[in-house]
Amino acid sequence: MTPRAEILAIGSELLDPGRSDTNGAYLAFRLGEIGIPVRFRTVVGDVIGDLEEAFRVALGRSDLVVATGGLGPTVDDLTREALASLLDLPLEEDRAVLRQIEERFRRLGLDMPPRNRRQAQVPRGAEVLANRLGTAPGLFLRSGGRIVALLPGVPSEMERMAEEELLPRLRPTGERFVYRIFKIAGLAESEVDRRLEDVARRAGEVAWTILASPGQVEIHLRERVRPGEPAVGIERIDREIEATLGIDLFARDGDTLEGTVGRLLLERGESVAVAESLTGGQIAGRISGVPGASRYFVGGVVCYSDEAKRRLLGVRRETLEIHGAASPEVALEMARGARELLAATWGVSATGFAGPGGGDANRPPGTVVIGVDGPERALHRELRLPGDRETVRARAAQWALDLLRRELTGARPAGPR
Amino acid sequence: MTPRAEILAIGSELLDPGRSDTNGAYLAFRLGEIGIPVRFRTVVGDVIGDLEEAFRVALGRSDLVVATGGLGPTVDDLTREALASLLDLPLEEDRAVLRQIEERFRRLGLDMPPRNRRQAQVPRGAEVLANRLGTAPGLFLRSGGRIVALLPGVPSEMERMAEEELLPRLRPTGERFVYRIFKIAGLAESEVDRRLEDVARRAGEVAWTILASPGQVEIHLRERVRPGEPAVGIERIDREIEATLGIDLFARDGDTLEGTVGRLLLERGESVAVAESLTGGQIAGRISGVPGASRYFVGGVVCYSDEAKRRLLGVRRETLEIHGAASPEVALEMARGARELLAATWGVSATGFAGPGGGDANRPPGTVVIGVDGPERALHRELRLPGDRETVRARAAQWALDLLRRELTGARPAGPR
Repeated sequence: MTPRAEILAIGSELLDPGRSDTNGAYLAFRLGEIGIPVRFRTVVGDVIGDLEEAFRVALGRSDLVVATGGLGPTVDDLTREALASLLDLPLEEDRAVLRQIEERFRRLGLDMPPRNRRQAQVPRGAEVLANRLGTAPGLFLRSGGRIVALLPGVPSEMERMAEEELLPRLRPTGERFVYRIFKIAGLAESEVDRRLEDVARRAGEVAWTILASPGQVEIHLRERVRPGEPAVGIERIDREIEATLGIDLFARDGDTLEGTVGRLLLERGESVAVAESLTGGQIAGRISGVPGASRYFVGGVVCYSDEAKRRLLGVRRETLEIHGAASPEVALEMARGARELLAATWGVSATGFAGPGGGDANRPPGTVVIGVDGPERALHRELRLPGDRETVRARAAQWALDLLRRELTGARPAGPR
Repeated sequence: MTPRAEILAIGSELLDPGRSDTNGAYLAFRLGEIGIPVRFRTVVGDVIGDLEEAFRVALGRSDLVVATGGLGPTVDDLTREALASLLDLPLEEDRAVLRQIEERFRRLGLDMPPRNRRQAQVPRGAEVLANRLGTAPGLFLRSGGRIVALLPGVPSEMERMAEEELLPRLRPTGERFVYRIFKIAGLAESEVDRRLEDVARRAGEVAWTILASPGQVEIHLRERVRPGEPAVGIERIDREIEATLGIDLFARDGDTLEGTVGRLLLERGESVAVAESLTGGQIAGRISGVPGASRYFVGGVVCYSDEAKRRLLGVRRETLEIHGAASPEVALEMARGARELLAATWGVSATGFAGPGGGDANRPPGTVVIGVDGPERALHRELRLPGDRETVRARAAQWALDLLRRELTGARPAGPR
């Protein structure tokens, strides 16, 4: 039988606005990879009664309960106490753990504050999970056929402990989950849905989810795979999606649009420069966010005023006056200006109105023009992008990177310039 | 007695990696404001048995259960069925709801797909909550002294329905939670902790949380306030924090560092231009992300290569050769170059090595120099920033904006340039 897991994220601050638990997603992913599905994720505050209740419910319905948080030295940290109380186990001071905590403070040239002594309390019968990055040790306990693991709430400490201490203690079920993500640009969610309708219908046992964010659609697949077998369903669907979507599919899994653009530029031995108005530096920021981007990214210009467009990029006064800033003519002069000014193989530009306000009757907020200027031709794309200022800017940057990607994919390499 | 609330986020995709529930945080905040604390938040997949179990547990321990998601038209959407089955209530087709759904499709020029008929199924005794933005109606049900509300999972639909349909049906308890956030730049978390130790010790009933993100520390306060009373604890702490931190406190609540910079520039009638290397457009992106930024943001230059620094910003070849790109001299020439090129009152620059790779023995990755050039003086700040590429870039942008903010706060206004 497949063991069933449940995750408790402990901390009153996780119930407050503006906070969210990220540990649970990480654990769900890693447990899934060894074939242990997570059925419930619960967030509970640092209240002893609520904690006992949460552990009681979890142990009543799940084979494995992994809790994160509440292992610190302060009086708010009650996870150990709640579990020990629920299972009626005495808390005992573990001398080895105490020495490790004292040693950690000594290495920092400090005396251990008295309150940290609490962290050496271990419920009888529990194994201690070493914390290499902080003072809070984890705990691993078997009780009535169930397993409970307590991990720290600090994500870096939790991840290290999960990898080195928790996962090796869990017997893989043989079965595991395999995940794959497909990333699509330039198509609306409904269009992706329509084009992949037949592929989705034949997905069989592979779980299929479609997700949309500004300027990007993703297909998430999950397949349960038996011991020693490959993910045949995902591999088949991968071929079908690639054949159906062609150039509209730009990446899989952790790859990004800017990463794909960078890889194409490196392969071609070419470079790119950017000219932005409404995106305000986002296109440059995304391109330069890829490690090693200095090998193909020369630089960029953000020109928020018409004067800056003229001075820095050589956009002509007449072009601005006759066509307006959100025009194909200005987008193309910006892209060419950046390419020439920075001596790059490619220039890419975005101009328009992000809103709120700005624009006019013919060019309301959301009106955006993208330009790409390359060795063989220049092209543009006029867009009406929905959403608020932030969304319009994000969509515009996405479209600009995607137009460049399509040119790089389709065009003949020109060699470095 | 204070009613106790619990939130269920329903959807198998919310248990998958890379996804998270944002509805719960919104609801916890809005319920808190009318004095209803949320004790548990649970994520559960679209599995009929798990859903019934989650509702059973929640109704056993909470006075108000708000569930989001699983109200759509597909066979995966089982929230209605699970609740009706648990409470042994028959599902009945609501003709008025059915007409509304049909009408919504008709307005889009479409026939209602047969599967949407399911959305008109209502457990006997439940009130329907109107969905003005989508087809999935919500439900509101009293059972055994408890209240259950089912809301759609799409955040915009959920929020509208919560505001217009759910919250008005809940009796405010009189008591409410008041929240305040203080944002601090230029200090490490431990330093903020130390300086505010006395203030925190006197916080009394006000819940106090300290949070750190790259280049920013936040203090989150929460106070339970009785009917007709102001948040006296928060107001007192506000004065104490302001007096203790002075200029290191840059904003409260939703205000941002770039918003504060923008407000100061507007007040002074001044403008800013940006010159970036390692931050790659992030500083410009943040400044221009504020609505109305075109009133004070002229533009910026991203120069990833030494040649671009020379060509665009007039950084001298000798300066680059003698001092290297990650030097105060280059940072200052960049800031002045941007200011002059774009005719702005202020120029701000960031140069350095984000890593991985780059730099040398004296200037390893994380070495960053920030420059500010203003009407009366120029200044710089040399930093060694910890973290990976993304973190170093984010910290550098934060420090640059903060150095500008401190100059704008302290310096005499120069008037527009």
